[in-house]
Amino acid sequence: MLKNMNERIDDLNISGLKIIQNKEYFLFGMDSVLLANTVSSNSASNVIIDLCTGSAVIPILLTAKVKSKCIIGVELQTVMYELAIRNVEMNRLENEVHVMNEDIKNEKKILCNIKQLTGKEKADIVICNPPYKKVGTGSLNDKEVRYNARHEILCDLEDIFKTSSKILRSKGKLYMVHKPERLADLITLARKYNLEIKNLTMLQPSLKKKPSILLLEYVRDGGNESSISPVIIEYDEDGKYTEEIKNIYCID
Amino acid sequence: MLKNMNERIDDLNISGLKIIQNKEYFLFGMDSVLLANTVSSNSASNVIIDLCTGSAVIPILLTAKVKSKCIIGVELQTVMYELAIRNVEMNRLENEVHVMNEDIKNEKKILCNIKQLTGKEKADIVICNPPYKKVGTGSLNDKEVRYNARHEILCDLEDIFKTSSKILRSKGKLYMVHKPERLADLITLARKYNLEIKNLTMLQPSLKKKPSILLLEYVRDGGNESSISPVIIEYDEDGKYTEEIKNIYCID
Repeated sequence: MLKNMNERIDDLNISGLKIIQNKEYFLFGMDSVLLANTVSSNSASNVIIDLCTGSAVIPILLTAKVKSKCIIGVELQTVMYELAIRNVEMNRLENEVHVMNEDIKNEKKILCNIKQLTGKEKADIVICNPPYKKVGTGSLNDKEVRYNARHEILCDLEDIFKTSSKILRSKGKLYMVHKPERLADLITLARKYNLEIKNLTMLQPSLKKKPSILLLEYVRDGGNESSISPVIIEYDEDGKYTEEIKNIYCID
Repeated sequence: MLKNMNERIDDLNISGLKIIQNKEYFLFGMDSVLLANTVSSNSASNVIIDLCTGSAVIPILLTAKVKSKCIIGVELQTVMYELAIRNVEMNRLENEVHVMNEDIKNEKKILCNIKQLTGKEKADIVICNPPYKKVGTGSLNDKEVRYNARHEILCDLEDIFKTSSKILRSKGKLYMVHKPERLADLITLARKYNLEIKNLTMLQPSLKKKPSILLLEYVRDGGNESSISPVIIEYDEDGKYTEEIKNIYCID
């Protein structure tokens, strides 16, 4: 299964699922696990699109967590796309998860694929763990694939809202994970594309530390009232994972 | 000091300050205390404006907490304005706190007053504990003064941002308290008036309960990066005030 010495196989601790990762490129983080955990999909007819899918960790996790007709991951970087394909095959999820090697800005191609694979016109749910950092910030030492996965080089926040808005049906949901410093953009830019924030959940490393991660749920053409969930605390006073986090991370 | 049987005098538990309130109108809540606690003003030349000042509880609390040249409260409802005047006099704060009986939408009058009282053209800090509820929501049994204090009858969120933007100097700060369900409006409408959210602090009644109050800090012409503070927890597992809350509420 492994194709070079930088690759490794990790257990996802749920339903026997595993994932091949390449540490030279980008290792999925707990933000992806947290994001997958927020997704609610109770209908077996739902079409789910994961933009910037990377190694396809989110689609693979979702097959064990939610109902759907089809989950489509979209990844532009070819080496990541190839890794995603191998991950789908290794987990024998070819019937549930499809991966496209495509620019997320090409929403026509995504819509065309939804139609071909499912017969539906639009997606019911879009998910995205996007590059967090603006161009010109962060370490320039990263290899290209990793740099692109972390920075808004190949797509930025507005591209994600624009595409999500075009491929989602009315009242469909977008789930995203991002950084607290982008809060204003995360709400203002979304509204520009008729995506209204419905729920915000923050993760704090501990009770006294600032939030490090935001989990956002939007509704296409939603009303303008939002809800904020109780904060998730990652570590307790003894530096151990809280029970809530153990449940989310599937740790005994 | 008391003018009718619905009035009472409460101790503010700081610097011997007291406040007359009328329970038929509107009793200040812990949201005002929390809001006053977030205000940072280290310069004795700062001009502070409190919009929708009610009984002037925030200006009075601020005299004990921050430095300023002058604090001006703006209140449209005449009975509340008269109460505010009596509160300023009772606490002998006539040299520090001024109250205007004015519509907050009349920003020219506010600017004129700033000029007359301080010689400055603009305010350095604006504070507002606004009516939270949209018209048509909430109890209709409230008496008029209380209904107006709670509902967006005499001013709405956009009016507050509009006036704040006009009376604040560039890089001046707006502090506001509001409800979580208005999060998207609180960020999007503010940006429309060049007020960028800089800090968000949430209050949760307990660790497992949703936030009930948002404390927001904006900067006029600020950059678009924001910060989120650790959540404030009001009650611990035993149902007692947390140490943090005791400090804020000035309870031993």
